[in-house]
Amino acid sequence: MEPIKSFSLSKEYLESLREGIDNQKIDFIQESLEGANVADIAAILDELNMEEALYVLRLLSAEIAADILIELEEDSLLRVIREMEPSELAAFIEHMDSDDAVDILILMSFKEREEVISYLTEKEKSANILDLLRYDEDSAGGLMAKEFIKANQNWNVVQTIEEIRRQAERVEKIFSIYVVDNKQHLLGRVSLKKIILAASDTKIMDIYEPDIVSVPTHADGEEVAEIMRKYDLESIPVVNAKNRLVGRITVDDVLDLIREQSEEDIQAMTGISADVEESDSIFKISKARLPWLLIGVIGGLMGAQIIGFFEEGLSKYIALASFIPLVAATGGNVGIQSSSLVVQTLASKSVFDDTPWQRFIKGVSIALVNGVVLGIFVFLVVHFVYGFESIFGVTVGLAMFCVVLLASFMGTVTPLVLDKFGINPAIASGPFITTANDLLGLAVYFGVAMALLKL
Amino acid sequence: MEPIKSFSLSKEYLESLREGIDNQKIDFIQESLEGANVADIAAILDELNMEEALYVLRLLSAEIAADILIELEEDSLLRVIREMEPSELAAFIEHMDSDDAVDILILMSFKEREEVISYLTEKEKSANILDLLRYDEDSAGGLMAKEFIKANQNWNVVQTIEEIRRQAERVEKIFSIYVVDNKQHLLGRVSLKKIILAASDTKIMDIYEPDIVSVPTHADGEEVAEIMRKYDLESIPVVNAKNRLVGRITVDDVLDLIREQSEEDIQAMTGISADVEESDSIFKISKARLPWLLIGVIGGLMGAQIIGFFEEGLSKYIALASFIPLVAATGGNVGIQSSSLVVQTLASKSVFDDTPWQRFIKGVSIALVNGVVLGIFVFLVVHFVYGFESIFGVTVGLAMFCVVLLASFMGTVTPLVLDKFGINPAIASGPFITTANDLLGLAVYFGVAMALLKL
Repeated sequence: MEPIKSFSLSKEYLESLREGIDNQKIDFIQESLEGANVADIAAILDELNMEEALYVLRLLSAEIAADILIELEEDSLLRVIREMEPSELAAFIEHMDSDDAVDILILMSFKEREEVISYLTEKEKSANILDLLRYDEDSAGGLMAKEFIKANQNWNVVQTIEEIRRQAERVEKIFSIYVVDNKQHLLGRVSLKKIILAASDTKIMDIYEPDIVSVPTHADGEEVAEIMRKYDLESIPVVNAKNRLVGRITVDDVLDLIREQSEEDIQAMTGISADVEESDSIFKISKARLPWLLIGVIGGLMGAQIIGFFEEGLSKYIALASFIPLVAATGGNVGIQSSSLVVQTLASKSVFDDTPWQRFIKGVSIALVNGVVLGIFVFLVVHFVYGFESIFGVTVGLAMFCVVLLASFMGTVTPLVLDKFGINPAIASGPFITTANDLLGLAVYFGVAMALLKL
Repeated sequence: MEPIKSFSLSKEYLESLREGIDNQKIDFIQESLEGANVADIAAILDELNMEEALYVLRLLSAEIAADILIELEEDSLLRVIREMEPSELAAFIEHMDSDDAVDILILMSFKEREEVISYLTEKEKSANILDLLRYDEDSAGGLMAKEFIKANQNWNVVQTIEEIRRQAERVEKIFSIYVVDNKQHLLGRVSLKKIILAASDTKIMDIYEPDIVSVPTHADGEEVAEIMRKYDLESIPVVNAKNRLVGRITVDDVLDLIREQSEEDIQAMTGISADVEESDSIFKISKARLPWLLIGVIGGLMGAQIIGFFEEGLSKYIALASFIPLVAATGGNVGIQSSSLVVQTLASKSVFDDTPWQRFIKGVSIALVNGVVLGIFVFLVVHFVYGFESIFGVTVGLAMFCVVLLASFMGTVTPLVLDKFGINPAIASGPFITTANDLLGLAVYFGVAMALLKL
């Protein structure tokens, strides 16, 4: 008999697991997955099809399977939960933290969700889940979990340790114990380290740290991430409008959020409409990419119209055509640079940021510097190196200057406007805006040329 | 007398602090900063000039000042440490974790660094710092701190708590206690929660968790971040080549790293050469942006040469000029989309990724789909909507098809090649490569046109 292949994150193990599933080698599957990290098992299940993944999940304990479900990629997760009976899913959800349960339930229809929740046996858990479902997914309320440990300021260390013991099963990770008064108002935190080192009869009120950072339930997820980064926090308490402690957010959820958002930003900038990965199917990737490419193509076709409009002038001065790519590319580059700087500032807002007016002045000043330098450079090359007559050099140089100014203006203003309307400002560096800028640049270029060259 | 303005992260407080500094109101400064979070104080000092910031730092306790120094932005930090005597800086560094001390020392010349270290009174600290300075800044060794708590597997809970007490002063944050054997080999971890709940005479070997994730000192920082995100870790142990525990990395350092790297990626994509922010001076921003704009301009000027080369054909068929922006923009968009997908995959490498050959086949297939769709669309518009003769429609459509194929190829291959040579692959979506793609696209367009239109 061949020896049991132990678990590893490899194509070989994946193959042997598939074989095990085909031949229903239950022992092999259970033994090889024993002790493996749930995130690794999830990475393996992501590679299996729905039946295979479900088969493996059902061979594992509900506790382990619950942890794996949380770690699955969204499309594998969707495939699997669609196949499960509400009662089966509920059995897994019993073992999840409330925030993870909500992340899964949010993917289902209202009706399915209600059904799953009706199967939950723990009343506290279903109440917690229903509470969390009220919040916007990307807000602090949507990110927080109801599983955390709090201590009344009047307790002593022994009472607090008793509370930790009571909750130990329910709360997997304890970083800090939050301290509240009799009305559940958040007062501060005390670290486990302090609890361990303090004498048993020490009152919590004598050792807790006041002046801690908390966030309201409605805070934006990105803001929470920035606060946790800035203040080096592993977890942050969430309070309601009355400053009552209602949840906590742990840094692992924030790390996932940051990763998702930076992917979203880059996808917005590069014009890929759905959440795709290189490993997705050809059809899915094409479908995600084509819409934005089409927008670019339509922009290009409109550009053809603009140039066609100046065709008479162009035929008199054919060299004008040669500098079309120069003008278009520079407009695009300047616009993207300007907008990405603004987007970066928007991502980490600070009270010391320049006012919109100061920004505007500064943006114009930088555009003037860049525009003058590039305009003169282009004039010099066109006139002296390429040997065109000076009026033509001036035309291209001046067009460059105007395009830099205009693209800077659009690149600065567009993300600010998008942000005002609650739209991801990273879109401003994306194909739609860039295409619009290209068209403006073309119009300016030919406008300047017609005027100066008297065509 | 006017009441003391209490600390807040506001322009008003900043003004009153500046006034306090001018008038040497030491009491006001010390009292208003009392209890404020060090990250917030750092954000205020970032707004002050060097003399003002140094004045405030010197009024605070060395411990608080050390924590503030760590949180300063790099340029403020540089300004301040340049003014300090080595002995003064050493006094601050005494209060820092070894990894934070190294982050500051790394900014100085080798000679200055040695001098500061020579003033350190704690032998262990200077040994730790010298050890950490050996590692590459962006590796696990460069990110780790020497301050962590380890327990021998043979200890019991009481002995472990004694160790925590001994180290409590030195190790601020304790998430886990790492468990080692007599030769300091990493065996696993035990959480503070378990320590609190276990009986005093429980042996560590009976309660620790084996099978934990660790990283070698040479692991890349980005990889460490991805591992901590994937496995939801707040801290990760670092081991040397002999699996001996040598340090730990905490999630707060990883959050900073992730933020820096996503900013770097976006700056590489948008062509901003130095690490600039919107709040920097006009001169600094222009200087960071101009080099890449110039590259784009030079590319554009080379494009003018290419078009000039086809000028005869162009003058016979002036409408060719109209579609230059279309071809250039589509090539750019396709290239950026392809490269950003590859960059995304490279950022989270997985053993289940497609092989280079599979990637190539897939990339070509997607390019074929996109190229055919866009080529036919363009042909239809040019011929039927714009009313050009069919051979011209075919020319533009076929050129589109070729450009999509070529740009996809370049967009897929370039980041892979850059990554092979250890260069940030995000540059592939940046101005340099995009400009090169534009030129190729132009050459293809005119090549196809010359052949089909027999010019």
